Amino acid sequence: MEKIKVGVVGATGYAGAEICRLIAGHPAAELAAISSVSFEGQALSDVYPAYREMCDLICTTQEAVVEKSDVIFAALPHGLSQELAAECDKKGKAFIDLGADFRLKSEEEYTEWYGGTFTDKALHEKAVYGLPELFREEIKKTKLVANPGCYTTAVPLALVPALEKGYIETTGIIANCASGVTGAGRKPAQNSHYPELNEGMSAYKVACHRHTPEIEQTLSKISGEKMHITFVPHLLPVNRGILATCYAKLKPGVTEEMLRAAYEERYGKEPFVRLLPKGKSADIHNIKYTNFCDVSIFTDLRTGTFIAISAIDNMVKGAAGQAIQNMNILFGLDETCGLKLVPPAF
Amino acid sequence: MEKIKVGVVGATGYAGAEICRLIAGHPAAELAAISSVSFEGQALSDVYPAYREMCDLICTTQEAVVEKSDVIFAALPHGLSQELAAECDKKGKAFIDLGADFRLKSEEEYTEWYGGTFTDKALHEKAVYGLPELFREEIKKTKLVANPGCYTTAVPLALVPALEKGYIETTGIIANCASGVTGAGRKPAQNSHYPELNEGMSAYKVACHRHTPEIEQTLSKISGEKMHITFVPHLLPVNRGILATCYAKLKPGVTEEMLRAAYEERYGKEPFVRLLPKGKSADIHNIKYTNFCDVSIFTDLRTGTFIAISAIDNMVKGAAGQAIQNMNILFGLDETCGLKLVPPAF
Amino acid sequence: MEKIKVGVVGATGYAGAEICRLIAGHPAAELAAISSVSFEGQALSDVYPAYREMCDLICTTQEAVVEKSDVIFAALPHGLSQELAAECDKKGKAFIDLGADFRLKSEEEYTEWYGGTFTDKALHEKAVYGLPELFREEIKKTKLVANPGCYTTAVPLALVPALEKGYIETTGIIANCASGVTGAGRKPAQNSHYPELNEGMSAYKVACHRHTPEIEQTLSKISGEKMHITFVPHLLPVNRGILATCYAKLKPGVTEEMLRAAYEERYGKEPFVRLLPKGKSADIHNIKYTNFCDVSIFTDLRTGTFIAISAIDNMVKGAAGQAIQNMNILFGLDETCGLKLVPPAF
Amino acid sequence: MEKIKVGVVGATGYAGAEICRLIAGHPAAELAAISSVSFEGQALSDVYPAYREMCDLICTTQEAVVEKSDVIFAALPHGLSQELAAECDKKGKAFIDLGADFRLKSEEEYTEWYGGTFTDKALHEKAVYGLPELFREEIKKTKLVANPGCYTTAVPLALVPALEKGYIETTGIIANCASGVTGAGRKPAQNSHYPELNEGMSAYKVACHRHTPEIEQTLSKISGEKMHITFVPHLLPVNRGILATCYAKLKPGVTEEMLRAAYEERYGKEPFVRLLPKGKSADIHNIKYTNFCDVSIFTDLRTGTFIAISAIDNMVKGAAGQAIQNMNILFGLDETCGLKLVPPAF
Repeated sequence: MEKIKVGVVGATGYAGAEICRLIAGHPAAELAAISSVSFEGQALSDVYPAYREMCDLICTTQEAVVEKSDVIFAALPHGLSQELAAECDKKGKAFIDLGADFRLKSEEEYTEWYGGTFTDKALHEKAVYGLPELFREEIKKTKLVANPGCYTTAVPLALVPALEKGYIETTGIIANCASGVTGAGRKPAQNSHYPELNEGMSAYKVACHRHTPEIEQTLSKISGEKMHITFVPHLLPVNRGILATCYAKLKPGVTEEMLRAAYEERYGKEPFVRLLPKGKSADIHNIKYTNFCDVSIFTDLRTGTFIAISAIDNMVKGAAGQAIQNMNILFGLDETCGLKLVPPAF
Repeated sequence: MEKIKVGVVGATGYAGAEICRLIAGHPAAELAAISSVSFEGQALSDVYPAYREMCDLICTTQEAVVEKSDVIFAALPHGLSQELAAECDKKGKAFIDLGADFRLKSEEEYTEWYGGTFTDKALHEKAVYGLPELFREEIKKTKLVANPGCYTTAVPLALVPALEKGYIETTGIIANCASGVTGAGRKPAQNSHYPELNEGMSAYKVACHRHTPEIEQTLSKISGEKMHITFVPHLLPVNRGILATCYAKLKPGVTEEMLRAAYEERYGKEPFVRLLPKGKSADIHNIKYTNFCDVSIFTDLRTGTFIAISAIDNMVKGAAGQAIQNMNILFGLDETCGLKLVPPAF
Repeated sequence: MEKIKVGVVGATGYAGAEICRLIAGHPAAELAAISSVSFEGQALSDVYPAYREMCDLICTTQEAVVEKSDVIFAALPHGLSQELAAECDKKGKAFIDLGADFRLKSEEEYTEWYGGTFTDKALHEKAVYGLPELFREEIKKTKLVANPGCYTTAVPLALVPALEKGYIETTGIIANCASGVTGAGRKPAQNSHYPELNEGMSAYKVACHRHTPEIEQTLSKISGEKMHITFVPHLLPVNRGILATCYAKLKPGVTEEMLRAAYEERYGKEPFVRLLPKGKSADIHNIKYTNFCDVSIFTDLRTGTFIAISAIDNMVKGAAGQAIQNMNILFGLDETCGLKLVPPAF
Repeated sequence: MEKIKVGVVGATGYAGAEICRLIAGHPAAELAAISSVSFEGQALSDVYPAYREMCDLICTTQEAVVEKSDVIFAALPHGLSQELAAECDKKGKAFIDLGADFRLKSEEEYTEWYGGTFTDKALHEKAVYGLPELFREEIKKTKLVANPGCYTTAVPLALVPALEKGYIETTGIIANCASGVTGAGRKPAQNSHYPELNEGMSAYKVACHRHTPEIEQTLSKISGEKMHITFVPHLLPVNRGILATCYAKLKPGVTEEMLRAAYEERYGKEPFVRLLPKGKSADIHNIKYTNFCDVSIFTDLRTGTFIAISAIDNMVKGAAGQAIQNMNILFGLDETCGLKLVPPAF
C-alpha cells in the first residue's frame, strides 16, 4: 500500500518537529515536505541535531508542502491557519490544524479571546473538533480537523464520564493544571531561561488563559448546558507533561463505585486512555513521549468532592500525537497506527 | 549578651539539619548540642559534607542535648516528642516541636489521623500552635511550641485575611498544593529515587493527607466555624518549596479591591509575608532558602471564585525557619533575627 | 515469519525493563517470558506503571524464561550469569548477557576487579564481546554475547578510528566521563535520592571503576598493544546519557583533516554512529531514548592533544539497545530492526 | 563603625545581582547605589522578584554609582571596564572588576582572545589579579582588582599546591570542567532554553575558551614556566557550580601522601578552601550558594596520573563572593566577613 504523504507547515516549532519525529516511526505514512518561515532552506536536523540522519528534510515553502502532501498539518501561530485551510479545502486535501483558529465554534468567543474574526464561515462549519475519544464519528466525516490544545485535551478527558452520567454538578468545577515548559514553545524567554525556571513553580494567566473557553465548549457540549469553569494553569520545571487535577461537586447519592463503573465503561475500549486502579494517581512520568492519557479518580466524602486527575504528554496527546491519531481516523487506518509507544519508565 | 544555647534532637534528618544550618548564621544563638539515633558519635558534617568546617558538631544523645541547651528543637517521627516535651517542661526548658504530636488540639482527631493518644493532657494544653502571623501573642506566653507543618503554614497564610473579613464562604474550599521532595525526608525511597521522580509530577494521599485536620483546625479557629476543606498534595521534581493554590467561593458583593485591601492591611507589617502586586503570581523560585511566604491573590469573576496562591520553602518557613522565628519570639528577640535571608534569584 | 521469542531474566531492573520496552516496539520479536526474583508473580506494569497495557507480562522464574524463549537476555548482578549461560548453551539457546561475567577475557583481571572466577572456561571462550561496530563478524558466529557496559561502549567508539590509524599515542589517554543516574540502577540509595543528587555533580570511583579493564581490553585489541588509560566517571543529575570526553596525545604530523577522514571512513556506514560536523560537540540531549552514538572530534594544536567526545544513552546503546542490536545480528535480521528510533529533541 | 558604601555597575546581570544579594547580608557594608543600562529607573526587585523587600534599590547611572560609593564593583561585558576603572582611579575609589579587561597581563594575549587593546597601560600595571589564596599580599596593596573568572578560579585552586612543590609535570595538563548554566548569564538563548538544556550535557568552546590564557597565566606565575594546558568546558543542567577535574602527570617518586601533605600545608589555614579526606570527591552540591572551594585529590598509579578535582559556586567563589572577599581584603576586614555561609545540604 502506498504511504500517506504528510506535509507539515511550521515544522521547526515544537509541535511541528514532534509531528516529524512521530511520522518517522509511522508505518503507513511518510514525510513528504515541510516548511518553516524562519528556517527555509535549512534541514530540520540542522535546527534539531537530535534528528540527524532521521529527519533530514529541507524546509521549503508552505505552497510546496500543500502541493506534495495528502494531508497537511499546520503548526502555526493563531490567525495564520484560515487561509491555508481554505486552500487545502479547495484542493481537496486533508487539513489538520494544531493552532486555535478552528477550535472555537463561536466567533464571538474567538474574537473575545484571540482578537480575530472568522474569515470564511463555511469553512468553520466544516471543521470538526479533533478529540477522538469524544467526537470520533464526526471526525471520520471531515477533512478539516481542529486539533485540540493540551489543557483542552487533559481536562475534558478527566471529567467527561462523570459529566455524561450526570454524577457531578455543572457549576463550581475547578481545573488546576500544571504543564511542562515545552508547552510555551521553542522561542527562548526569560521565564523559560533555565536558571529562572529550574527549581521553580508558579501559576500563570490565572483564570484568564485562552484554553478556558475551549474547555468550556467541550464540557458544555457533553453536558448539554452552558458551563463555566475556573481554570488555573501552572508552569512546571519539566520538559513535557500536563497534570490536570480537576474538582467537582458530587451530586447527592453518587458513590465512588458508581463513578468507577462509569469511567470503566466509558474508557474500557479506548486505546489511549488508561484508567488507573483505585488509589493510584496519574503521573506525568508515566505517559511522557506517548499518546496515552492516564486518568485517576477519587472522592472526598468529607466535603462531597469528586477529584479526577489526568496526565498527558502535552506534545503528543496534547498536540502532535493526537493530530496523527486524527490523521489515522481520516484515512481509515487503525487509530493506534504509529502511536503504540511504550513510555520510558525512567 | 550571652548567646542562646540551642539543642537539636533528630539533627540528621532534613528538618534538624536545616535548623543547624540556620543557627550557624544566627547572631544571638549557637548550637550547643545535637543528637541522632542513627548517627550517634558521628559529626553532622560526616552525614552532610556540605556542612564541613561549618557544623562539625558530633551527634550525642537526647539527654545530653536537653542538659546543655536553653531551647530544644525536636525533629522526630510523630509519637516520640511527648516524653521529651515532658522532660523539658520539668526542667523549665523551652521546647519547639517540629513533629505533629502537639499540633492538633483534639485528641480524637490526633488518634484518627495519627493513631496515638495524648499521654499528658496538661502538657497539650500548654502547647501553643506556632504560626506567628496568626498566634504571635499566645506564642509569647508559652515555652512549648507546636511548630506547624509545611502545607499547614502555606494554606492558612493564603486564606486567612479573606476568611477573617468574611469575604469567602467557609465551605467548598479547595487547597491544591505541590511540594518539593525534601518534604518527604532524607530516607531514600522508590518515589524519590532520582530517575523515577525527575520529569514527573503526581498527586499523592489525595484527600487523605494528615495535614488536612491541622489546616482545618487553623481555619476553623480563624473563622469561628468548624470547617472542612478538600486538600490534594502533589509531589514536585524540585528540592524545596510549596506552592498552595487555594480556591474559595466569593461572598456576594466582594470585589478584588476589597480583598487586596484586606491582605494589605493584614500583612503590611509582617516581616515574612510578601503580598505580590496585582497580576503577579507567587513562585517557589522566589522564596527558596528563606523564611518568606509570598502571597498572591486573584478573582475569577466568571465563576465567583477567589484564588489565593502562596509559596514557601518547606524546609524554612515550613519547618526550620519558622521554628527559629518561634524561638526568637520566646526569647524576646526581634522576630527576624538570623532570618533576614535574601532568596537567590537564580 | 514467526517472531523471535524473547526472554528476559532480571526484567524488573532498569536494563531488563528497558529491553522489555524496546522489544514491545520490535517488529520481528516478541516478549515470551520474563523473570524477577524480587517481583515474581507480579506484572511488569505493576512495578513500572508506565508500562500499563503495553508490557503486562507476569514475572515468572528463570527456568520458565529459558524454556519459552529463543534468546535469553540476562540483566543480573555480576556472578549470576555463568550458570544461566551454561544452561542456555546446553539447550542451544542464544544468550545475551548484560552483566560483566563474560566481558573480560582474562580470568586474572576478572578476579582482580570482580572477585570471582571463571566456572566454565570453555564457555568463556565461546563468548564474544558484543560491540557490533568493532566485532560484528565474530558476533555473527556465536550464540553467547557479552554485551558491553555503558562507559565501555562510549569510550572505545570515541577513540577507535584514531587508534586504528595509529594517529594517537597509546599511553596517556584520559577518559573523563559523565553518566546519568539510571546507570546506578533501580535501587534507591542516598546518592541517588532526589534532593541530594539534584543540582549536584561529582566524580566517583576515581581511577578505580570496574569498567577500566574492560575499556583497556577493547582498546588493546584494536591497537595491538597492552594499553592502560586513566578513567574518571562522574554522576550527572539527568536520567540518561553518557558523555565521554577523551584526551589523547596526537602523533607528530597528524592533522585534524586526517582524523576527520579516518572517522568518516570508519563510521560512514555505521547505522548507529553519527559523526558530527566540525565544531559541533556531542550532547547527551540528542541521543536519549535511542541507540545512537554521537561522536565529535577536535584537536588542540597548542598542546598537541586529540579530543574525542561521544554521547550515548546508557540504557539503550549502553545496555538494552545494543543487546537487541546483537540479537538482530545473531538472528540474521537487519541490525537496525526495531531500533530506528528518532531522539526526542525536547 | 561606618559601613563601606558599595556600588554595583551592571547590577541586573547575574554577577551584579549576586553581589547585591551578598552585600545585603554583609555586616560591614551596605549597598549605596546600583546601575543598569537596560533597567535604569527600575527597582532591582522588579527585575528579580526574589529580592522584594530585601534589595529594592532603584537602578541609576554609572556616574551616580561612582559618586556615592567607596568601592565600585563592575559586572560589565568585556571592553567596558577600562574607562570606568580610570575614573575610579582618578577619584581614589576602590574598583573591583568582574569582567575580563584587567585579568590578562599580556596585551598581546588580550588582543588575541578578546580583540581589544589596553587603553591605559599604567592602569593595567596597577591592577592585581584577585585570587586571594594565591595573591593575597598583592591585593592588599592595590585599589584595582581584576576579579578572576569562574573556571580560572577553580582550576588553579585544584592544581597549585602540587605545582608549587614541583610534584607534577608542567606540560600535558588537562582541565576538564563543567559549569552550571548561570555561567552563561541572564540573557535567554536557545542553548539555555529549559527544554533544550534539561537532561542534556555537552562540551562547548572545546580547547578555545577565553579562560584558557587566564588559567595559563596563573599557573605559569606559580610554576615559573610558561605553561599551556588543554581546557575543555562543558555545560551542565544545574543552575550553579563548577566542577574542575584536572589531570597532570606525576613526577617520578611522588606519592599520594606527599601530595596530601602539600595540600594540607597549603590550604590548612585558608578559610574558603576545604581539602576533602582521602577517597571523597568534590561535589558542586556541597558548595552551592557559598564561597567555598572544595578540593579533592587522587592518584592513578597504573598510569602515573595526578587527579585534582575542585568544586566552586560559579556565581559566588567564581564571581560575586570572591569579589567581596577581595573587598574585605582591600578594606582591612576579616576576609570571611559576610561570607560565612553554610551550604544548603539539600
